[in-house]
Amino acid sequence: MSSIEMIEAAAARLRGHARETPLLSSPFLDDIAERRVLVKPECLQHTGSFKFRGAWSAISALDETARKRGVIAYSSGNHAQGVAYAAARHGISSVIIMPSDAPQLKIENTRALGAEVVLYDRANESREEIGEALADQRGLTLIRPYDEPQVIAGQGTTGLEIARQARELGVTKADVLVCCGGGGLTSGIALALEHHAPGLRPRPCEPEGFDDVKRSLASGTIQNNNASSGNICDAILTPQPGRITFPILQRLCGPGLSVSEQEALHSMALASLRLKIVLEPGGAVSLASALFRKDQIEGEAVIVVASGGNVDPQIFKDALEFLT
Amino acid sequence: MSSIEMIEAAAARLRGHARETPLLSSPFLDDIAERRVLVKPECLQHTGSFKFRGAWSAISALDETARKRGVIAYSSGNHAQGVAYAAARHGISSVIIMPSDAPQLKIENTRALGAEVVLYDRANESREEIGEALADQRGLTLIRPYDEPQVIAGQGTTGLEIARQARELGVTKADVLVCCGGGGLTSGIALALEHHAPGLRPRPCEPEGFDDVKRSLASGTIQNNNASSGNICDAILTPQPGRITFPILQRLCGPGLSVSEQEALHSMALASLRLKIVLEPGGAVSLASALFRKDQIEGEAVIVVASGGNVDPQIFKDALEFLT
Repeated sequence: MSSIEMIEAAAARLRGHARETPLLSSPFLDDIAERRVLVKPECLQHTGSFKFRGAWSAISALDETARKRGVIAYSSGNHAQGVAYAAARHGISSVIIMPSDAPQLKIENTRALGAEVVLYDRANESREEIGEALADQRGLTLIRPYDEPQVIAGQGTTGLEIARQARELGVTKADVLVCCGGGGLTSGIALALEHHAPGLRPRPCEPEGFDDVKRSLASGTIQNNNASSGNICDAILTPQPGRITFPILQRLCGPGLSVSEQEALHSMALASLRLKIVLEPGGAVSLASALFRKDQIEGEAVIVVASGGNVDPQIFKDALEFLT
Repeated sequence: MSSIEMIEAAAARLRGHARETPLLSSPFLDDIAERRVLVKPECLQHTGSFKFRGAWSAISALDETARKRGVIAYSSGNHAQGVAYAAARHGISSVIIMPSDAPQLKIENTRALGAEVVLYDRANESREEIGEALADQRGLTLIRPYDEPQVIAGQGTTGLEIARQARELGVTKADVLVCCGGGGLTSGIALALEHHAPGLRPRPCEPEGFDDVKRSLASGTIQNNNASSGNICDAILTPQPGRITFPILQRLCGPGLSVSEQEALHSMALASLRLKIVLEPGGAVSLASALFRKDQIEGEAVIVVASGGNVDPQIFKDALEFLT
């Protein structure tokens, strides 16, 4: 199981390899949110999302024999890039299983980062089955995207940074909005905050219609989404919360929040105008929650984890229409 | 005169107020530049450009009596926003003199950052006369955009960060490309590097046709630009290098570099795709020099100061055309 000790050990392994991202702010966003908004731009992390942290944590934790055989991952994109790049920087090989309808940019990037890409049909095949079969055949270690203690520990290093940075800015009590798919980032941050900033309360943020975590937290049992695709927030469309992550979320998170695709796009536009960062839709649902669900948020400040920026250029241009 | 002691004193006054921006990188940019590229994204600084550093430095260096009376600046751009916000955060008033035909959004933003905006008729009035009259009436201190030792000292804090961050990444010898208008940022960085990273050589970057600094360095005497407008890199179109900045540039900089408007726009697109940051054209000429003037650059690594991100949304969308 993941623990604060694992997160702190992961932080030591990540030092000098992952970036420490700053906390950004803009008085213009504060005005919209009607409270102080502090944004952690994980889009600036290596490979454009927080996923590099978990990938580095998991690969660096392997024993040398296993590591040398290589790793495998299944992912709609950001986890793929994180694993591919972390593997390449460890000097080992990686195989990435990706849905054939993933954004072309993410597929190309994953290949360019040194991975072998295997495509599958999201509607008719199980990525888990394909991944486990390939892992067995080639002796590869499977790096799961969220239900994996060392991955959760790596993502949790984001929470260690938030705890320290928020304290330096005088913020000790606030909701921490986290874009949530399977819950790896949210649960890692939750564990870090529990120990280092107990006044900061994590809250998962999702797209409307894919709010399995929000409904699972409300009902107390794991709920599924009805669909597995058909929303612009592709990075965080997971069928249900993880078996490892959900109990952590249940114990430590406040209620979930959900936003529309238009609100995610609008927030991407505001992030580019006011913070000078590029977000993808799935990485902007946290900011959208801060800006457009302010009545559901408590406190004089809110912390927003903007989790990724790997957006297709056309979608980004569409988002910028909100500015003109 | 500006000195390393003034820069270090400015850094102490800026601590906890200006952001320390990270050094970003992408293997995709390294491939294009054919060397390691480290980008200092000052677009992530408060108000979207490095100008906040110099403004904070100058205002915080005033004696309390002068500071309480307030400050004044002439600018419709990044310096205006930096001065307005630094003044507001000091709890003092600022007056920004702007032409009445400036874009409404810039006027609104400057007001929203806490400044009193005084509009003048570009055709029939002199901003200097209006500014001097106001300064006399109210006892305001004029904050010049670059030919001002405490402003140079504030911009130089960027160089202190570069020296330390580059050393941590193992880079001790490299060209440091800096977007250059009047030379405040370049000269401040040059002084900081001279003392803390003598293997890092600053090089001013400008738009083609507005390369007064490049020509001044080459000829050894101050040269003027033929025009004062008519280039997309509006933030760095100054008539000539400053009287204070030029001797510093002359003593410490390598040869200047210049790029086309199209190269600046293309670099903005690549910065958004690969680094997830938003640059304005004048803030991207340094990156454009790294990517498109690689034969004029020396060494296995290059450091790029991406100085600002306050771009008009339509121009940003035009730049993104390079990706589709």
